[in-house]
Amino acid sequence: MTMEFKTAVIGLGSMGYGMALSCLRAGQKVWGADINPDAVGKFAMAGGQGGAFPTDLNAVVVVVLNAAQTEAVLFGATGVVATLSPGVVVLGCATVPPAFAREMEARCAAAGVHYLDAPISGGAAKAAQGALSIMAAGRPEAFRAARPVLDACAQTVFELGSEAGPGSAMKAVNQLLAGVHIAAMAEALTFGMTQGIAPAAFVEVISKCAGTSWMLENRAPHIVDGDYSPRSQINIWPKDLGIVLDVAKSAGFAAPITAATLQQYMVAVGMGLGAEDDAAIAKVYARNVGLTLPGPRDPAAEG
Amino acid sequence: MTMEFKTAVIGLGSMGYGMALSCLRAGQKVWGADINPDAVGKFAMAGGQGGAFPTDLNAVVVVVLNAAQTEAVLFGATGVVATLSPGVVVLGCATVPPAFAREMEARCAAAGVHYLDAPISGGAAKAAQGALSIMAAGRPEAFRAARPVLDACAQTVFELGSEAGPGSAMKAVNQLLAGVHIAAMAEALTFGMTQGIAPAAFVEVISKCAGTSWMLENRAPHIVDGDYSPRSQINIWPKDLGIVLDVAKSAGFAAPITAATLQQYMVAVGMGLGAEDDAAIAKVYARNVGLTLPGPRDPAAEG
Repeated sequence: MTMEFKTAVIGLGSMGYGMALSCLRAGQKVWGADINPDAVGKFAMAGGQGGAFPTDLNAVVVVVLNAAQTEAVLFGATGVVATLSPGVVVLGCATVPPAFAREMEARCAAAGVHYLDAPISGGAAKAAQGALSIMAAGRPEAFRAARPVLDACAQTVFELGSEAGPGSAMKAVNQLLAGVHIAAMAEALTFGMTQGIAPAAFVEVISKCAGTSWMLENRAPHIVDGDYSPRSQINIWPKDLGIVLDVAKSAGFAAPITAATLQQYMVAVGMGLGAEDDAAIAKVYARNVGLTLPGPRDPAAEG
Repeated sequence: MTMEFKTAVIGLGSMGYGMALSCLRAGQKVWGADINPDAVGKFAMAGGQGGAFPTDLNAVVVVVLNAAQTEAVLFGATGVVATLSPGVVVLGCATVPPAFAREMEARCAAAGVHYLDAPISGGAAKAAQGALSIMAAGRPEAFRAARPVLDACAQTVFELGSEAGPGSAMKAVNQLLAGVHIAAMAEALTFGMTQGIAPAAFVEVISKCAGTSWMLENRAPHIVDGDYSPRSQINIWPKDLGIVLDVAKSAGFAAPITAATLQQYMVAVGMGLGAEDDAAIAKVYARNVGLTLPGPRDPAAEG
């Protein structure tokens, strides 16, 4: 008789949905949960389980927006931890403060449940391919219990420590840079436009020069194409850079570039761009100086 | 009889010296000039010509610090342009405002001399290998006259326009990003240290994640190694980001991330770090929060 590995994925947004599919593809039996019933229905159509979780889950993957939602799904009125058997593992994948991850580890341990501090990086496409980077930290037994999920979802698992915290710390470091790089790209691209440099020339030249970044190469083409359909939303950045600055404040650490960047995202939110792709930060700069960014491509015109 | 191509390189700093060597290697006869006689002597030992420029130069490559020095060597009391024959080309390689490049083109044209707006990118090692990126703009006849120098010095020549200006504009765009990325790397690395992330772990993980940049991969290892011998100096950045902000101001363009970054470099200059490698911007953050960065490696301890 084959032991079936049973996983629940809580949060079927763009990242969680891809991770749930990756677990399915690895042969696991996967339950999906989301506040949006359409997401659960879509996952059921793709081979997932809907409805109540079974009592013999092996792993719970929490891919919600933030610490408050993570705490609610784990320990709220209908929190899942109280229903889990000893030895089950919870993977916390949201971007949260390191101290929160340590608190979750302790509260799970009190319930006999393992906790892996496991923030994710790579975007929706890599989530769907099972090719994420996971910045993981936790006790050896948490890593052991989580291994089938890590194998299914990740191309690279960074093992950053033997208790929760360093995974979330590294994720915060990564988000600091990613958020700054997107906004700096927009600042440079629009500055170039004021000097007659077309966005397409900016991408072509700078992507081959010392000024390039992963985010520049990934996001600047959205501006060239005038395509702001959300792959990653503006709304992510006030949240994630806010976590960075909260953690920095607790450490007595001044982060002036991060702080200036956060303000630009706040302007974008104020302009009503929160649900657009984060490349829409360029619209803040364009509005301020009176530039017109490229419009959407017209497929009919491209023959 | 073979026509010998005669080039003068004015400014034998780390970039100019490498370009002069690259022209020599391509079979050109090369005169070097520098305010530092030791640099000229070193170049003569490597096969270059010292002493006065001949009257039949084909090209003059100006690789000095800024616009003021460029103007002085071209049009000052002993400026070279007055000595050049019609049809000779001047390559302006310093980082300068686009309007200054247009002015140099006009003043050279009045003397019958071609001007190529030709800022360079890639660092001293690529300069020595003849593998620079050159962001070039100028009239077709300026490109034609400069071709032997471009071929000798560059891996990639971006041809950005048919008059001077766009080369310097693109260089300013690149410097905006490069300067921000170095400082953001230092902000993130030291923030990570406050959360227990060692600099070596930072480089290992983030260089494989969405937060990476060309500058992070190039400069962060200097911090890990505690090696601040100058490959590119802190002093470059108040100058180059100052040009960016001056040009931005003329265009009515607000660049808050660049502005915040420039202030961090100013703190570094105030700490006496101006002549150190630009990775030393990390020392500003470390001092502010009371962190100790890695010291120099002890070769004796490494067996």
